[in-house]
Amino acid sequence: SSMQWAFARVGLKWDDASFLSLHGRSPEGFLTRLKGQAKVAILTDEKNSPPVLARRMAEHGETAWVAWVCENLGGPDERVRRFDVADLAVCQDVGPLNVLLLVRSDPSWRAPCAIPFLHEDAFAKRMPKKGLITKREVRLLSLAAMGIRPDSVVWDIGAGSGSVSIEAALLAPEGRVYAVEVDPEGVEICRENLLAHAVDNVRVIAGRAPEVLADLESPDAVFIGGSKGSMEEIIDVVIDRLQPGGHLVVNAITLENVGETYQALRKRGLVPEVTLLQVSRAEPLAHYLRYEALNPIQIFAVSKPSQTGVAS
Amino acid sequence: SSMQWAFARVGLKWDDASFLSLHGRSPEGFLTRLKGQAKVAILTDEKNSPPVLARRMAEHGETAWVAWVCENLGGPDERVRRFDVADLAVCQDVGPLNVLLLVRSDPSWRAPCAIPFLHEDAFAKRMPKKGLITKREVRLLSLAAMGIRPDSVVWDIGAGSGSVSIEAALLAPEGRVYAVEVDPEGVEICRENLLAHAVDNVRVIAGRAPEVLADLESPDAVFIGGSKGSMEEIIDVVIDRLQPGGHLVVNAITLENVGETYQALRKRGLVPEVTLLQVSRAEPLAHYLRYEALNPIQIFAVSKPSQTGVAS
Amino acid sequence: SSMQWAFARVGLKWDDASFLSLHGRSPEGFLTRLKGQAKVAILTDEKNSPPVLARRMAEHGETAWVAWVCENLGGPDERVRRFDVADLAVCQDVGPLNVLLLVRSDPSWRAPCAIPFLHEDAFAKRMPKKGLITKREVRLLSLAAMGIRPDSVVWDIGAGSGSVSIEAALLAPEGRVYAVEVDPEGVEICRENLLAHAVDNVRVIAGRAPEVLADLESPDAVFIGGSKGSMEEIIDVVIDRLQPGGHLVVNAITLENVGETYQALRKRGLVPEVTLLQVSRAEPLAHYLRYEALNPIQIFAVSKPSQTGVAS
Amino acid sequence: SSMQWAFARVGLKWDDASFLSLHGRSPEGFLTRLKGQAKVAILTDEKNSPPVLARRMAEHGETAWVAWVCENLGGPDERVRRFDVADLAVCQDVGPLNVLLLVRSDPSWRAPCAIPFLHEDAFAKRMPKKGLITKREVRLLSLAAMGIRPDSVVWDIGAGSGSVSIEAALLAPEGRVYAVEVDPEGVEICRENLLAHAVDNVRVIAGRAPEVLADLESPDAVFIGGSKGSMEEIIDVVIDRLQPGGHLVVNAITLENVGETYQALRKRGLVPEVTLLQVSRAEPLAHYLRYEALNPIQIFAVSKPSQTGVAS
Repeated sequence: SSMQWAFARVGLKWDDASFLSLHGRSPEGFLTRLKGQAKVAILTDEKNSPPVLARRMAEHGETAWVAWVCENLGGPDERVRRFDVADLAVCQDVGPLNVLLLVRSDPSWRAPCAIPFLHEDAFAKRMPKKGLITKREVRLLSLAAMGIRPDSVVWDIGAGSGSVSIEAALLAPEGRVYAVEVDPEGVEICRENLLAHAVDNVRVIAGRAPEVLADLESPDAVFIGGSKGSMEEIIDVVIDRLQPGGHLVVNAITLENVGETYQALRKRGLVPEVTLLQVSRAEPLAHYLRYEALNPIQIFAVSKPSQTGVAS
Repeated sequence: SSMQWAFARVGLKWDDASFLSLHGRSPEGFLTRLKGQAKVAILTDEKNSPPVLARRMAEHGETAWVAWVCENLGGPDERVRRFDVADLAVCQDVGPLNVLLLVRSDPSWRAPCAIPFLHEDAFAKRMPKKGLITKREVRLLSLAAMGIRPDSVVWDIGAGSGSVSIEAALLAPEGRVYAVEVDPEGVEICRENLLAHAVDNVRVIAGRAPEVLADLESPDAVFIGGSKGSMEEIIDVVIDRLQPGGHLVVNAITLENVGETYQALRKRGLVPEVTLLQVSRAEPLAHYLRYEALNPIQIFAVSKPSQTGVAS
Repeated sequence: SSMQWAFARVGLKWDDASFLSLHGRSPEGFLTRLKGQAKVAILTDEKNSPPVLARRMAEHGETAWVAWVCENLGGPDERVRRFDVADLAVCQDVGPLNVLLLVRSDPSWRAPCAIPFLHEDAFAKRMPKKGLITKREVRLLSLAAMGIRPDSVVWDIGAGSGSVSIEAALLAPEGRVYAVEVDPEGVEICRENLLAHAVDNVRVIAGRAPEVLADLESPDAVFIGGSKGSMEEIIDVVIDRLQPGGHLVVNAITLENVGETYQALRKRGLVPEVTLLQVSRAEPLAHYLRYEALNPIQIFAVSKPSQTGVAS
Repeated sequence: SSMQWAFARVGLKWDDASFLSLHGRSPEGFLTRLKGQAKVAILTDEKNSPPVLARRMAEHGETAWVAWVCENLGGPDERVRRFDVADLAVCQDVGPLNVLLLVRSDPSWRAPCAIPFLHEDAFAKRMPKKGLITKREVRLLSLAAMGIRPDSVVWDIGAGSGSVSIEAALLAPEGRVYAVEVDPEGVEICRENLLAHAVDNVRVIAGRAPEVLADLESPDAVFIGGSKGSMEEIIDVVIDRLQPGGHLVVNAITLENVGETYQALRKRGLVPEVTLLQVSRAEPLAHYLRYEALNPIQIFAVSKPSQTGVAS
């Protein structure tokens, strides 16, 4: 009940607030979870102290907040202080017994859209050399087919610019995304995009699939956007490691990938849902809107049968 | 702090629970909000008493819960009782001062997918005579373009089976959806689907657009799936009534609708984003998977400029 | 010069006529070659006598002609007679030395369209049980990719209703088409359609590919519309038998066929042109035109390298 | 019978030859008609003398022929001479009474494909600044819908590079194509392409539609590839001028063109066939074939009702 006490002390209603405990937990995902909140009470601990959290916020540009640090509530040395994020980040004298309240400083703030649907431009500050950003229509339909839940563990294999990882992370604020990318430039760009989008529940895995997958926790959902010629091997590992009832989604844009993906799945006794998607967008041309086609893509989706042998 | 007290009394941790106040509020959306929760503490009032809420749950098939009713917590006549939903629904002696705790009875329950992506089959128990259910790929891309936020007010014009309304409602559990449908059979089917999907923040408006729109609260997001030949008039009303920064999405499947929608928007000085979508699904045919095309559709999306004259 | 003499005798100009010699040749294709002609002089022989040719015409409904039989031109027993097709068909006393002139009886007759582009309806009097008629857009693009010349020998494997065979035959009036079909009902329907379209340079081969291909003359162009699960074997035989510089076109509508066709070709060192085709037609719906999709199809086209090792 | 005499004199069989009279006729289309022939006997006149025709051939690169000029056949001053095209082009002493025989010099020559289906590359030596060459799949389906007959008069409005005009001309060797183009650079490129493809039955009309259409002969088939903003006016003129039973085909790639074309036709009481075409081609990418989309296009086709009021 220290939470409600804290709100009372700073003169705010508590019943539209969220509660978040970082006590004894990893701060991973803290920023992602903040995205939908206007008012949060946070239980901290020594490692996840208010200044540490504020630094995490500041580094990702999450500064449009008012922070209240309420120490020793109800005790003789009770102290309630108001900070902006930058000041809190460098504050040295916050005691161990405290509640951190975060309140949006912009009264017109509204929760973000329920479906992430970011334009490719949002990831394009630095383009990977050969890489292409998954088009947003394709990304959205792929994420939907992955059946991501708020606490899902997700693998994004061939993460490239990180667009799929970032949106998956937004959909799974209580979960984690492993962004696997072999190209060093891609890894760097992916990290930049994570920072720019203030998403902190994505772990970038620099290395080659399927080799690096062995060390990752078993996934609920897997996306394969690139296979570097190892599609069959990757699919074999993924199907083994996928949680029962979990989903694999593959994006195939070449005849080779279509054939290999289909064969690899059928060999494992799995019949995928395959969606052939052709999207055209009307783009301005002088005073007109001209239809311009994106390249067709085939989205393979398959769920791993649950342990009872029945596909979920 | 009665909330935490209540959890203590029944021997459950409180820090992974959600809090929901129905005190002095409409119960509309109560069921929709429950969908993502495993453990909820609810502040009730005389109108939204525990038995009333339990009846709402029972009517929509939401019975896989254990309910704890905690009355007069901390007082001399404190009483804590455990119910299943059916029993609570008919309980006569719940006092006015209480906290209702709801806990999922299935320990393997997991939160639903973050992106609703229901197969057409999910709405097809009774098909509208001529109606067609918006295909799930089209529905998802349309909902994404509508920019629905958790508290959005949504109009679904030409709601038909209600598939768009239901998914919009899931995306806006703190908001409301107005499902406008002129065909009496459609209205009935829509209502059945709402019940079957246990979604209770959709209001079915039986009547013809644009006439019936006058009485509805101004929307943040509008979907036009059918216009019964009045596309231009509907668009005019919608653009007028749309909140600044709000989004209109139109699905056009005829040459007539494409032309009328585009003209009506350009007349208002608006240049839409137009997405021409062609989806094919691979369907089993003997031992094979054969590509089968869905009909192409054009998704028009436009956002109303905010009051400062800048489109959001 | 008997030709010009014959025209002079019947009082017609000769310089807009075509000449056609059936002397010592098979009458195969006679009707197909007639299709583009308004006025033809024909050298006959005992086997291909005027009555025999007239019977062929009558059986195929080609009766809108005036026939002149000019016997013993310039001789003492010269005889010039005018017939309609039906009468000529039963005439008993035509001598061996003759010229046959055929002139369209309808003065408003115009040559048919240069590109055959027949609606599926034109083949649909009796539909094959499971069979589907190749859609006209697909048929046309396939025929174009086959590089058919006026004298080409064509194989149509999985001929079904015969639509591809018939149009190929129209494009190759000096050539021949082998329509290979294993289903007895398909064979019958194909024969009916050949008769109905008055095309007589198609040979229906009732049997299974690749087995029956061994006995056919080597083709300049091959179309595979159906493979009954033997795609790879068929492609192997076809590539072996194809004339250098000849073209193979495969229509694939299943994931299996796409994969098998591509693999079989790559194994032979051939990189096909692949066209993914999605056609929608606007169909009347009440007062509107609604876009309706045909299923997507992938057209594989490959040419056999000429003997010098260079693909043509 | 001078024809057969001529063949006899030079020692060639006549019964596989074609006959072509340019006596008193325009030489327009002479080269186009030659394309499908291996052996031709030509009646000339003083204007279309053998050297004049040879010059036309030489200018268009049509030199792979042996020419026989047979003068005064059967007379005392009979003369039979063999030329190559270049020599004949400069020959000064050909008498007025002659027959010209043309025989392909390459014994492996075969007639060209029955369906013209030229790659865009074939027209791309010099690209129009903003212009785009109609893609070959679109071109072919458009030409088929135009119902071109061997003697059709065709208008190609917005001819650009001339690709549609050239293929239309190949399909109508006895007809004429009017290539209407307003952009001076386009006009020049179109002329270059006509020369390069040795097609001589296309008249380039430099000017703006619909204004310049008034002076052209009434068409059997019309293609509108570009309208420069005057779609409705152009369609009005075209429908007026089209021969009964003739066909109009419009290619629309913008929302504006789709709307205007449809409206203009409906206003005239005409319901078009509309084909929405999405073509992707698999293009080599490293060792793979990647599907690459061409922009979608809508092909409108309508036939003008014949005088009896029935659409043909």
